[in-house]
Amino acid sequence: MRKAKKILNDPRNVVPEMLDGLVATYKGRVRKLDGVNAMVRTDIPAGKVALLIGGGSGHEPAYHGFVGDNMADGAALGNVFAAPTPDIVLEATKAVHRGKGVLYLYGNYAGDILNFDMAAEMAAEEGIEVRTLLIRDDVASGPIENRRGIGGAMLAVKIAGGAAATLGTLAEVVDVTSKALDNIRSISVALHAGSIPETGQFTFELADDEIEIGMGVHGEPGVWREKMVPTDTLVDKMLEFILQDLPFKRGDEVCVLVNGAGSTTNMELLIANRRTLQVLAANGIVVHECVVGSLFTTQEMAGFSISLMRLDDELKRYYDMPIRSFGWTKW
Amino acid sequence: MRKAKKILNDPRNVVPEMLDGLVATYKGRVRKLDGVNAMVRTDIPAGKVALLIGGGSGHEPAYHGFVGDNMADGAALGNVFAAPTPDIVLEATKAVHRGKGVLYLYGNYAGDILNFDMAAEMAAEEGIEVRTLLIRDDVASGPIENRRGIGGAMLAVKIAGGAAATLGTLAEVVDVTSKALDNIRSISVALHAGSIPETGQFTFELADDEIEIGMGVHGEPGVWREKMVPTDTLVDKMLEFILQDLPFKRGDEVCVLVNGAGSTTNMELLIANRRTLQVLAANGIVVHECVVGSLFTTQEMAGFSISLMRLDDELKRYYDMPIRSFGWTKW
Repeated sequence: MRKAKKILNDPRNVVPEMLDGLVATYKGRVRKLDGVNAMVRTDIPAGKVALLIGGGSGHEPAYHGFVGDNMADGAALGNVFAAPTPDIVLEATKAVHRGKGVLYLYGNYAGDILNFDMAAEMAAEEGIEVRTLLIRDDVASGPIENRRGIGGAMLAVKIAGGAAATLGTLAEVVDVTSKALDNIRSISVALHAGSIPETGQFTFELADDEIEIGMGVHGEPGVWREKMVPTDTLVDKMLEFILQDLPFKRGDEVCVLVNGAGSTTNMELLIANRRTLQVLAANGIVVHECVVGSLFTTQEMAGFSISLMRLDDELKRYYDMPIRSFGWTKW
Repeated sequence: MRKAKKILNDPRNVVPEMLDGLVATYKGRVRKLDGVNAMVRTDIPAGKVALLIGGGSGHEPAYHGFVGDNMADGAALGNVFAAPTPDIVLEATKAVHRGKGVLYLYGNYAGDILNFDMAAEMAAEEGIEVRTLLIRDDVASGPIENRRGIGGAMLAVKIAGGAAATLGTLAEVVDVTSKALDNIRSISVALHAGSIPETGQFTFELADDEIEIGMGVHGEPGVWREKMVPTDTLVDKMLEFILQDLPFKRGDEVCVLVNGAGSTTNMELLIANRRTLQVLAANGIVVHECVVGSLFTTQEMAGFSISLMRLDDELKRYYDMPIRSFGWTKW
């Protein structure tokens, strides 16, 4: 069995070691909670609605790299590809709460739902109001209630972060973020798997000449496998799925995220971005901004996702806000 | 022969296609020159000293992703791992020049020197003053005059960009950038090679359990090969080379760049950053800021480099300036 080649210390200790290295990049603006794998901002203003994100680690810079100014106030982290335990979520909740309630925003995965829900109940017992929104942007994973959260999650965090920095009540932040979620669609393609640090094993196998469209970030089955095709052919197919799903219409304004899965080069992503913009232009869809990078990865998995978020004036206002975080900075 | 698995269109066309995708991310602030693989800012102020960087493509987001506010005014690009031709450099030079001269800043590679020098002569004939500074940060590549430019190049571009946005004369920008270059030291380690898009071939071979310390970004020979070791052991050895080279001393203040080679995960880089900071603290070296990311890559090569730049008040002032570019944004 082929194993991944990686530079690590004790693979059982990757999460806290990584967080030590991450906190240092923030120059004091973010801290790690003692004894718990959670990151929180050190400068959350009193009276601010709090935004807590999270999920399994192994998707760096998501989620913990998106804590920062006008982004998330905190992130609760599980082990690699595993949900954070309820106590981690609860500790993070208490650390970010400033009296106005906490929005939990995370991908639609059973383990995460179980543990975040349990934490929300415990938080309620301590008098902290929690509302939950699930990210379900992956159009390849069935009817909308079953859909997984993939790269478009980062667009949702961007909007929620802007709203939570601006609006006075949890209900208002929930409304804006819900609107963003309703307008985000993504699809992914995988070329080869990422590995699990503890075992070095890859999470799935694909033949040397095969790609899988719609594959999930942990290797969940996609829509179909096929032989390798050129970028333009592939992007055309991916966008066909996305555009018809919302559907996006002529005259719509969107932002675009072309997200690398981990080891796919910037060059490939930029070439995919070029085609994405050509297809959108041909469909009369206006691009407000496009972002290209590896924001939501699966270790050294190869592949990429395309996400679109349809904008209105309100969403655009929050999207345009400057942000400062390890994973994404904008001004 | 094993080949890389990548999503591309015609591999002979990767550079212009990539630039189309890149320009779009800049929302009009950067354009591609017609018929030439060069990128320039659209908003270079009159009377500004210009900064032109460049080299082979395939190292994305370097170099062309570092064109932007308080960074480079332009980048001249060759094909993958090949120097830009003199005419590309000349066209870029003319496009960025605002009457105050142009600083060429690039890595110490024979092909680049030949072509940039030829362009400088042609520019001189057109009355454009050019000064050249070579990046030679790689301590593993022999005596200082022979050293290659690797990840620390991005720190040099940061300082030069800040200086060129601030200072009134080319001579002053050269002085500040020279000081930065004198104070940057880097070392790299490789786990496996990146590939050349045109052929799909990898640029070198390493056994499954081997790493090479000091290997160059195109597979140039390093200092030694050894069996895989834990992060901490590896970082300790890498820093031993760097610290004794300048040498860095107790009380020095530095910024740190832990740079991924392409497919190495953020998780591994952050764990390496953690150890780097531990070693620096143990040596009494003060860290002003640490940056972790894949800024200067070699396609899907695995590995990373550590760079330190010793700061004084002047360098710190330019380092602290906000920047906005595809590859690195800071505020």
